[in-house]
Amino acid sequence: MENPINFQSKFDLFKDHWSPKVIAEMNDYQFKVVKIKGEFVWHAHEDTDEVFLVIDGSMSIEFEDRVVALKDGEMMVVKKGERHRPFTKEECKVLLIEPRGVVNTGDERSDLTAPMDVWL
Amino acid sequence: MENPINFQSKFDLFKDHWSPKVIAEMNDYQFKVVKIKGEFVWHAHEDTDEVFLVIDGSMSIEFEDRVVALKDGEMMVVKKGERHRPFTKEECKVLLIEPRGVVNTGDERSDLTAPMDVWL
Repeated sequence: MENPINFQSKFDLFKDHWSPKVIAEMNDYQFKVVKIKGEFVWHAHEDTDEVFLVIDGSMSIEFEDRVVALKDGEMMVVKKGERHRPFTKEECKVLLIEPRGVVNTGDERSDLTAPMDVWL
Repeated sequence: MENPINFQSKFDLFKDHWSPKVIAEMNDYQFKVVKIKGEFVWHAHEDTDEVFLVIDGSMSIEFEDRVVALKDGEMMVVKKGERHRPFTKEECKVLLIEPRGVVNTGDERSDLTAPMDVWL
């Protein structure tokens, strides 16, 4: 992590969707890049908030009571325990910020559950 | 924090330099926007890492053994205790991510020491 981390350079390194890759750590928090497309599973993270910061494209997050639309240059904090479902029609490039050890599907296990601590 | 947070909209709300404004919290961490121009003071944060994420423009961070250049779409983690001095000739718009309670000038007090917990 000595050099600046360029988001686009990191996104150029992979093509798969819904599988976050760690690019940096700050204390016990991780910064992860992820490409998303289609619909994710409903889930919650019982122990932590989670930040979505859109680098390129647009996406939405469905909550039980609302849908929030996000585009590049925007971020949102999903609060601890809040059930949510990210989705997007077109591919979107996202930076996730959350504590080390967070499983992408939270309290749910599915085909979309990704391995943790995959570094780029 | 119900709605998406748009960085440019936040930057449009102020003009001063070197005075971070909180725009969101994730657990006990804060996201702060700051406009910087000129040279900051040498300082370190003895208790925490700190993230610089450039939203618009370019900047540099001088360390005791090197200088790292950053531009929009790039981020860097300054490690706990590492003395550093941000600087930039032209105004640069930055997102800082660090725990609640961090003083911008770290272990130094100067005219550039900004009030904490100023929310936008």
